[in-house]
Amino acid sequence: MDDFTLDERLAADTLPVAELPLSRVLLMNDARYPWVILVPRHASVSEVFELSPHDQQQLWHEATQLGDAMKTALGGDKVNIAALGNVVSQLHVHVVVRRHSDATWPAPVWGNGAAEPYDLDSQAQLRAQLMAIIEGLDS
Amino acid sequence: MDDFTLDERLAADTLPVAELPLSRVLLMNDARYPWVILVPRHASVSEVFELSPHDQQQLWHEATQLGDAMKTALGGDKVNIAALGNVVSQLHVHVVVRRHSDATWPAPVWGNGAAEPYDLDSQAQLRAQLMAIIEGLDS
Repeated sequence: MDDFTLDERLAADTLPVAELPLSRVLLMNDARYPWVILVPRHASVSEVFELSPHDQQQLWHEATQLGDAMKTALGGDKVNIAALGNVVSQLHVHVVVRRHSDATWPAPVWGNGAAEPYDLDSQAQLRAQLMAIIEGLDS
Repeated sequence: MDDFTLDERLAADTLPVAELPLSRVLLMNDARYPWVILVPRHASVSEVFELSPHDQQQLWHEATQLGDAMKTALGGDKVNIAALGNVVSQLHVHVVVRRHSDATWPAPVWGNGAAEPYDLDSQAQLRAQLMAIIEGLDS
């Protein structure tokens, strides 16, 4: 791995949860949705296709598998997976569990109202749930 | 492959371009961005993780590779790749070339103003460009 430093804006908006083989998993501080962000631990990559073919496959695998596990464990109606990066250029992939009852369904989560920060207890509880989900993943 | 029928809303909003090994490539009828949609030719799948592991990998590969090639050939600043599907449940992946000068940069393309339909000449020209880009892809 390169000398990896997490983008400051990603760091400010999230809480670190765990490391997957390629990516760091971050919990977005927005109680409206179970929303995590995967950041491959490479310093200076912006596009998925700038990763090696192996790491491209690994990144999408991590995002897809985690979305599946989060939907099952947390309950939800749809998983949204997206690599956008128009604002923060450090490569990152959003994995969001959506519910028909959530704040902005069926609109996308980005740029749609203000984030609602977790209280510390709820945040710690979801973070622990996510850690258990991630420990249960097949590698 | 299952007995594949394209969702009616996807069909109404797009023009067919080509077939990749797993997916049909559709051109969104929105001249604000070079925006294609990949639809795996499986009849009744909504989530990427409902595909076989092989097809999951193939779908993300097709989206990533096409995004790379479109950005190079058409010119652009960032590629957005997303599997959302909150409105149309048939599994599909968006691949959008974004430019700093485009209509909604840096906001996402979804739910952000009205689509601007192509005139027939521009649409045919871009469709031909996309067909050439797709013919040039490594499988």
